[in-house]
Amino acid sequence: MTLTTIGFDADDTLWQNEAFFRLTQERFVALLSDYAGHDHLHERLLAAERRNLGHYGFGIKGFVLSMIETAIEVTDGRVPASVISDLMASGREMLRHPIELLPHAREAVESLSADHRVLLITKGDLLDQERKLAQSGLGDLFDGVEIVSDKTPGVYAAIFARHGVAPEQAMMVGNSLKSDVLPVLDVGGWGVHVPHGLTWALEHAETPEGHTRFRQLTDLGGLPDLVETLQGSHKI
Amino acid sequence: MTLTTIGFDADDTLWQNEAFFRLTQERFVALLSDYAGHDHLHERLLAAERRNLGHYGFGIKGFVLSMIETAIEVTDGRVPASVISDLMASGREMLRHPIELLPHAREAVESLSADHRVLLITKGDLLDQERKLAQSGLGDLFDGVEIVSDKTPGVYAAIFARHGVAPEQAMMVGNSLKSDVLPVLDVGGWGVHVPHGLTWALEHAETPEGHTRFRQLTDLGGLPDLVETLQGSHKI
Repeated sequence: MTLTTIGFDADDTLWQNEAFFRLTQERFVALLSDYAGHDHLHERLLAAERRNLGHYGFGIKGFVLSMIETAIEVTDGRVPASVISDLMASGREMLRHPIELLPHAREAVESLSADHRVLLITKGDLLDQERKLAQSGLGDLFDGVEIVSDKTPGVYAAIFARHGVAPEQAMMVGNSLKSDVLPVLDVGGWGVHVPHGLTWALEHAETPEGHTRFRQLTDLGGLPDLVETLQGSHKI
Repeated sequence: MTLTTIGFDADDTLWQNEAFFRLTQERFVALLSDYAGHDHLHERLLAAERRNLGHYGFGIKGFVLSMIETAIEVTDGRVPASVISDLMASGREMLRHPIELLPHAREAVESLSADHRVLLITKGDLLDQERKLAQSGLGDLFDGVEIVSDKTPGVYAAIFARHGVAPEQAMMVGNSLKSDVLPVLDVGGWGVHVPHGLTWALEHAETPEGHTRFRQLTDLGGLPDLVETLQGSHKI
């Protein structure tokens, strides 16, 4: 048994993402500070995001719609149209934000792509994810790009099946335990957590301490060695 | 040479879609009728959609954001928040609208799936397209589902390559000349136009009369026969 396939999450694994959401949230709070307190605004926005996830899915467009909805709610409809315009402008800025690769992202993908099938597996707005991949300069390194509406065990199982790889030969690497690690462990694959300082509240989950196919790295620099070590061990 | 692969567009080819956009647009016009005339509102909304396509891509969420933007514009910022809430509620209704299959959609896909690779190739919001496919009951008939951010010659060429099919063995069937027919003819495939009474202004294009790989059908009922006739002819 060998590890043939390495899946990479994109946002906050290969490049910065949550930081741009946080900046926009701070702007949202500043624009509405006459109407409600900082904590209350954050709470109401998060509640709207959670409520709307089933309608809008993940991504910036849904986030903007949730900000507008919350702005109307917390002001009892008194929010000026100029604030709503500002929120939409912030969304369009997010859709144009420059790509900042995270440490060792390029070298990890490059190094592993030599001997493995490397996949990008990400969720969010389709066009936005494609734009970011194109601008990252990493696009040509990937053997497959899977932009999905959610990262469930079933979605990973379908991706591995489509690429003809047994789950135990596949590893997923990402910053979200909930989306990148736990569902992959669930279907029999390997999950590598590379924590990012900023993680969206709706992505939090318990660390699966002691799971035989779970590993944690401080950044992507250690990934090629980890894969090599696992290949060489008797465990796989 | 044989036709091995049939691609189907989804919206307004397999099921109703544009009708729901038109209903929402009428609601948009009614909500803003105190501020501007019917034609002017339609024009301004279309201009916003065109302007925002590069940011938002296709789909309902971008459409709602364009409606909100236009509502603020045409009222010089005087639009009541209740109208913006109504526009967002209309968008959420669109994201829940029931699937109405178009005539012969199921039998055409079923019949062709017996002897061909059948693909669904559609653009729009990822989650929304997945939801509609699931609710259509047609999901299991397709050998592949491709939800793309745009339908360009390059996108079709990549899809055909990924499925290992030569373009001249592939046919795309859809209601949009611009998105479903012309780009496929462009890369060497067959394009079948099945017009729908309602087509979005941004999807209009000239009919490629006389093109050897172009065909037109009034509905999907004639598709299996058309495919069989082409298979039996010396042209392919």
